[in-house]
Amino acid sequence: MLTHAPVLRDDGVEDRVAIEEPLEIRVRGRAMAVTMRTPGDDEELAVGFLHGEGLLAGPVLGAGPTEDFANNIVDVDVELTAGARERRFYTTSSCGVCGKGALEEVAVHSEALAPDDGPVVDRALLAALPERLRQPGFDATGGLHATGLFAADGTLVHVREDVGRHNAMDKVVGRALLDGELPLADRILCVSGRLSFELVQKAAVAGAPILVGVGAPSSLAVELARDRGLTLAGFARGDRVNVYAGAARVR
Amino acid sequence: MLTHAPVLRDDGVEDRVAIEEPLEIRVRGRAMAVTMRTPGDDEELAVGFLHGEGLLAGPVLGAGPTEDFANNIVDVDVELTAGARERRFYTTSSCGVCGKGALEEVAVHSEALAPDDGPVVDRALLAALPERLRQPGFDATGGLHATGLFAADGTLVHVREDVGRHNAMDKVVGRALLDGELPLADRILCVSGRLSFELVQKAAVAGAPILVGVGAPSSLAVELARDRGLTLAGFARGDRVNVYAGAARVR
Repeated sequence: MLTHAPVLRDDGVEDRVAIEEPLEIRVRGRAMAVTMRTPGDDEELAVGFLHGEGLLAGPVLGAGPTEDFANNIVDVDVELTAGARERRFYTTSSCGVCGKGALEEVAVHSEALAPDDGPVVDRALLAALPERLRQPGFDATGGLHATGLFAADGTLVHVREDVGRHNAMDKVVGRALLDGELPLADRILCVSGRLSFELVQKAAVAGAPILVGVGAPSSLAVELARDRGLTLAGFARGDRVNVYAGAARVR
Repeated sequence: MLTHAPVLRDDGVEDRVAIEEPLEIRVRGRAMAVTMRTPGDDEELAVGFLHGEGLLAGPVLGAGPTEDFANNIVDVDVELTAGARERRFYTTSSCGVCGKGALEEVAVHSEALAPDDGPVVDRALLAALPERLRQPGFDATGGLHATGLFAADGTLVHVREDVGRHNAMDKVVGRALLDGELPLADRILCVSGRLSFELVQKAAVAGAPILVGVGAPSSLAVELARDRGLTLAGFARGDRVNVYAGAARVR
């Protein structure tokens, strides 16, 4: 599915913009969340979102669009955790923490990695990964984020683009889940933008040992990466990269 | 309050990162939302968020932190709309639509502007506004978004920085609301990043006739701007700017 659409700008120039539309995520008919996303790979997005929130209690038995005019509802057939069925849903305006009932529950549970879990990679490889992200949608519009899943030798496994950077990550993790590839114990996740708390959390819940981004990390992103034993690297551009946590995996 | 903190990177270099912490927004004791934000101006953020969501039914009688160890809860004394008291809260992972109960309710109500509402500004002024955003936090970290409120002659009125771009917008609108300056009928809003649906929505609800950004707009951002009669301009850099909607206000 195309990630962008032609638009006639009001100053008369023909241009292309990233497509943004709402998606309602349902589980067995129950509405769980609404997110603004770029259409395409909606099943991956829904599954990856639910997984990243720690809501899944069993295998995904199916996922697909429900009949609506706009194709903006996806329903997932999966058992939810007891907490998910009970919890109240909160809203958030700025991405990040979703559906947490209290501040102390902000972090989704994930096992901490040991320093010798996962691959050890060359610093130069880490720095160069963003250049290996294929981003046709971004190239056309300048308005899409991307997340890539890489093998330890730098081979690109999957890449997804979306107007929401969290969605791009959810899609990649959702693809891996549907392919039976979780946890991502020998993989590297690479994002085209900044490194927020939530992106680190999604990587941690997916079991990825290394997360690298083109942009800056936040304080809480660094803190969570250290707590969960992740390698967190930012400002990966050309031959430079800053390692904020987990330097033992960087040669 | 400082927007950034020192960090000793795991590769041994001293650096600075943008501070990111959760904030729970309450109204008269009831939890309404949790957002990841950069501390500081939390009352503005809370009030701006509630206003942008169309939840306010009366004047803000007060707003301030509640006693907790982390100073991460703010309570607002204000009357909510009937819908706000009743509605269910959904979560979203990627910013955008917050707390909407159904797809058809995605858009918060706001009045459409007429083409001759608001100021007419020079294209060169619009293109140059991002350079007038003061961003000390971004300069130190590379990890903060900014929103600026400008007078029609390009004078900076307020600027706020935050790890979440929606938060930066909420803080600016919240400040204006607390100062009795809404609607922003003669103002220009300027953001440091991309132009999502939700940023256009927040600008529309605040009554701002012009929104300009450094980054790309999405399809739905352009659509909403046209529907509400806003001028939407993107890729404002140096002496260039693209006008996607409302070109009648650009000279």
